[in-house]
Amino acid sequence: MRLLVIGGVAAGLSAAARARRKDPSLEIVVLEKGAVVSYSACGLPYFIEGRVRQVDELVVYTPEYFRRERNITVRTGSRVAAIAHARREVALECGERVHYDRLVIATGARPCADGIVGVEQPHVFTLQTLEDGERLRRCLEEKRPRRAVVIGAGYIGLEAADALRRRGLAVTVLERGPWVLGRDDAGLTKTVTRLLELHGVELRLNARVSAIEPDRVAEARCDVVVLAAGLRPNAELAAEAGVQAGRTGAIQVDDRMETNLRGVFAAGDCAETCHLVTGRPAYIPLGTTANKMGRVAGANAAGARERFAGVVGTSIVRVFDAGIASTGLSAAEARREGFDPVSARIESAARAGYFGGRPTSVELVADRGTGRLLGGTVAGEQGADGRINVIAAALHARMNLEQFEQLDLAYSPPFAPVWDPLLIAAQQLIRLL
Amino acid sequence: MRLLVIGGVAAGLSAAARARRKDPSLEIVVLEKGAVVSYSACGLPYFIEGRVRQVDELVVYTPEYFRRERNITVRTGSRVAAIAHARREVALECGERVHYDRLVIATGARPCADGIVGVEQPHVFTLQTLEDGERLRRCLEEKRPRRAVVIGAGYIGLEAADALRRRGLAVTVLERGPWVLGRDDAGLTKTVTRLLELHGVELRLNARVSAIEPDRVAEARCDVVVLAAGLRPNAELAAEAGVQAGRTGAIQVDDRMETNLRGVFAAGDCAETCHLVTGRPAYIPLGTTANKMGRVAGANAAGARERFAGVVGTSIVRVFDAGIASTGLSAAEARREGFDPVSARIESAARAGYFGGRPTSVELVADRGTGRLLGGTVAGEQGADGRINVIAAALHARMNLEQFEQLDLAYSPPFAPVWDPLLIAAQQLIRLL
Repeated sequence: MRLLVIGGVAAGLSAAARARRKDPSLEIVVLEKGAVVSYSACGLPYFIEGRVRQVDELVVYTPEYFRRERNITVRTGSRVAAIAHARREVALECGERVHYDRLVIATGARPCADGIVGVEQPHVFTLQTLEDGERLRRCLEEKRPRRAVVIGAGYIGLEAADALRRRGLAVTVLERGPWVLGRDDAGLTKTVTRLLELHGVELRLNARVSAIEPDRVAEARCDVVVLAAGLRPNAELAAEAGVQAGRTGAIQVDDRMETNLRGVFAAGDCAETCHLVTGRPAYIPLGTTANKMGRVAGANAAGARERFAGVVGTSIVRVFDAGIASTGLSAAEARREGFDPVSARIESAARAGYFGGRPTSVELVADRGTGRLLGGTVAGEQGADGRINVIAAALHARMNLEQFEQLDLAYSPPFAPVWDPLLIAAQQLIRLL
Repeated sequence: MRLLVIGGVAAGLSAAARARRKDPSLEIVVLEKGAVVSYSACGLPYFIEGRVRQVDELVVYTPEYFRRERNITVRTGSRVAAIAHARREVALECGERVHYDRLVIATGARPCADGIVGVEQPHVFTLQTLEDGERLRRCLEEKRPRRAVVIGAGYIGLEAADALRRRGLAVTVLERGPWVLGRDDAGLTKTVTRLLELHGVELRLNARVSAIEPDRVAEARCDVVVLAAGLRPNAELAAEAGVQAGRTGAIQVDDRMETNLRGVFAAGDCAETCHLVTGRPAYIPLGTTANKMGRVAGANAAGARERFAGVVGTSIVRVFDAGIASTGLSAAEARREGFDPVSARIESAARAGYFGGRPTSVELVADRGTGRLLGGTVAGEQGADGRINVIAAALHARMNLEQFEQLDLAYSPPFAPVWDPLLIAAQQLIRLL
């Protein structure tokens, strides 16, 4: 019995490792198209910044580790050209065919070029693989560019802008939409815009880019460009084999991570997941979700029956000194989903003044009729991570505001004020219901 | 219609302020026995440490503020001698009688002397009122004591020990029980013991103190003593008026904060609350809970119908550089409550190594049969507050481990590892179910 996994980063290796734990006798083979596996792409901005010194600090495990410690065969440089599910085999680009009994597709995603002309130029970079990171950092060190344009104000774009600014470059971020971080949220966009401005980064919203010139993008002069206009799921290989994609364009899976083909699972950035607030499939490619999906896909591919319920859309990004965090739906998104949203935004100290408490802003969104909490954002230099996670847990539990308002949160002056900003925001919002 | 509130600190003033918001026409009178109202007793350890320079930095609002901004009469130095509920009046110690239509009892708690002989000596201190804090700091500054004994290893005792140690004193903590922080939790006790040791504070468990001598307590030499052996609810005044106390000794209230006497409410450190994990009344005097109870008591005293569901027993205390946080039940406590507890403790980095991630320990306790999460502890220098709050929210929601394990927590290297320590602990514990 052979489990074949296509893709050796987060989801693929989580699947392989979990399958091994469930079934010590399974043969497990992981095919990775690149030269390294198990790396933290999320760490690339900090390699660009220089905080991570060597790119190999971002590699968690080696193929050798998997062979030795987990009895898992990891083959790098093995790009799959086609999946022939009727014969239960994949064809590698080199011509070799590999049989499988169970298959996990974890082919990930790729930076979206978004129809932009000129992306192949040597001064244009993406931040997906370790090679991408090395190439950009080499350029920064050797060519000493002075002006950068970042295309896209999603989390990778903001992290790249932050990293380049810290290295002293003048940075302009061009975002095609009217908001940042892929969230239709005016308040959050304002917070991020101010924060970028404060640190000398220019953000232009509604800036549609059609071409990258050698010395400019749109009207922004630059000598280096980072393309971070979102991710597109690598779902083509699966589609050609008859694996169905959902409306998001990513691979459709059930809550066992199985596709429409029996014994074929998908996980990670190539697949959809369920958004637990809307109850609908969503495409939110993130490392944490990829790992969780991978675990469940691997367990089930090894014969277990586990499920992955879905996500609530939590994310956090550091923008200079602040954590910018969001989860669930913004008010505008909630309206589009058929809720009757009402929201409140407060600003309050994150902890006692004599412990250097800094302002934290919290916005909560709830449904007017039911009081159900639908989403929230937290922005600030202290504790944005912990506070967004409390909102996320409340979304998982489908809490209403009355329950949320009474949460027994930890208090002590070094950590929080006696009324936590989360509870102040909830009190404020309850008045508007 | 007059609402009378006995007690002008957390619960009493929350009640008064909320009643005013609910009913602009109500006459509201607050009687406070002390000279100041609305102070943060929780800040006293940091005044002792010297971080808070002036004691009045711990005063949030003045009686004048309440009169001017809220139309609430706050009378300081007004100690109530008796409540005559049949006549709807209270008698002050000075002989004056004050009528009420509705009454909120927020008489707080007092340090428990625990039958110890010699607590009246001038080198013995408590840390409850601002005067207590001033008296101790004056002693430290003027007499320059070199050795301190702290009686009690609850949160006030640990905070006092920390503060005195930071001021250079040799500190011994004597705890009568076999554990710290009032939690029957061997793991937590070990963590705190090590932390204290590391910073030169000696902790002696099972150290029953019967008398304080002028130069020693038990065998520990000292020239200053802080008594922090727990709190006792000020429920006597209420009891004499026919207000029922619960088995904990604190005033019994329903979920509207009403006592057995109609129109008489109680809130804060003098009252019980419901422990949402056990479903039973508990006495857990804390500032946050006092404020929440006060709000609900005030709203209902003003004619609203609100409820306070209860607490899950969350607390956090800073011990030197670490946050020591707990919520819900320990395994030993869960067993006593009739659960079949199983627990797992892990240690893991709080964030990426290149962001200075430090070890965080997480213990989770769940019920074997149902998988229901029952409690947890988090200890570490980074994010213990945020992580304990996620566990607390999960306890409010009665989550089981499978739900908890899939929480969509925020990830980005500056804030967390890709597998949050909370989720690693949950994975570990699921294997033991």
